[in-house]
Amino acid sequence: MIFCSNCGQQVIEKVPAGDSRPRHVCESCQTIHYQNPKIVAGCIPIQEDRLLLCRRAIEPRFGLWTLPAGFMENGESTEQAAARETMEEACAEVKDLTLYGVFSIPHISQVYMMFRANLANGHFGPGAESLEVRLFEEHEIPWDQLAFPVVRLTLERYFSDLPGRTFPVHVENIIRPPRRMP
Amino acid sequence: MIFCSNCGQQVIEKVPAGDSRPRHVCESCQTIHYQNPKIVAGCIPIQEDRLLLCRRAIEPRFGLWTLPAGFMENGESTEQAAARETMEEACAEVKDLTLYGVFSIPHISQVYMMFRANLANGHFGPGAESLEVRLFEEHEIPWDQLAFPVVRLTLERYFSDLPGRTFPVHVENIIRPPRRMP
Repeated sequence: MIFCSNCGQQVIEKVPAGDSRPRHVCESCQTIHYQNPKIVAGCIPIQEDRLLLCRRAIEPRFGLWTLPAGFMENGESTEQAAARETMEEACAEVKDLTLYGVFSIPHISQVYMMFRANLANGHFGPGAESLEVRLFEEHEIPWDQLAFPVVRLTLERYFSDLPGRTFPVHVENIIRPPRRMP
Repeated sequence: MIFCSNCGQQVIEKVPAGDSRPRHVCESCQTIHYQNPKIVAGCIPIQEDRLLLCRRAIEPRFGLWTLPAGFMENGESTEQAAARETMEEACAEVKDLTLYGVFSIPHISQVYMMFRANLANGHFGPGAESLEVRLFEEHEIPWDQLAFPVVRLTLERYFSDLPGRTFPVHVENIIRPPRRMP
């Protein structure tokens, strides 16, 4: 942020009175511009013993496989966001959404909220952001071609819980891996 | 949003190509400014059979009672945000945080994430945003002086679950009550 979205003047970065963190502050109109984490809501769409993955048609991670998920919009509930993203990316209607994972990713200021869900009917297909959408049995999961660490984590927890048919809500953090030395 | 925070020119509201919702778009530098829900993280701080509430020293709802909670910051996990807010508002250290409520409030684009937590030691007191902080047994809860519907909902679920000592994660939505006819 360079300019104040309220008055158009340049903002500065400073700690406002009574605050403890630097913010973008407009000294012209006194607006403090807070920036906060975003929620990414998505589903594990399930049909019998298979689950649905999407192959990304967009960057980042073009061509890799992901669970349908995306940024929650204003005016939605978390379940509505997860179901909408599943419709947009996989053309799939889901039902029986149950919260399964709350995964904070502090270094990119995102919180993933992943729901287990059943496919409502047999229909699915690639949305605008997907090259391909298909159902996978566990032994077919393309573990070495997953788009994001949070997708791997969600799938690992799911297949670990599956034999016991008990699915607690997992609340975990994904920490940036340390950079390798050159 | 009136001005582009990237280049300072006036933005317009329009549906970008490939999108389905109106956004603030800068036609000068082509930036699309997305606006997304915010996470409010907080705790039910517990000590034996009592829980901690804060009486608000700020608007809105000055003078009414609330659970310690506030906007999650960039770079935090949800638990870190809940513990930080409890320290800021109630000068109380908490431990053993366990996710208890995920409450979407679509009409104000907020998602509350409430954790059960134990007070780590006997210490607590009013932070800058609180007039007063105290522990309440169930029969002492000031039900008619609670600051927000989400505080009531959290406490109702908690005291309903308490006898069975089983605390599932509650995922619910708080819908704006219909306006009364004049």
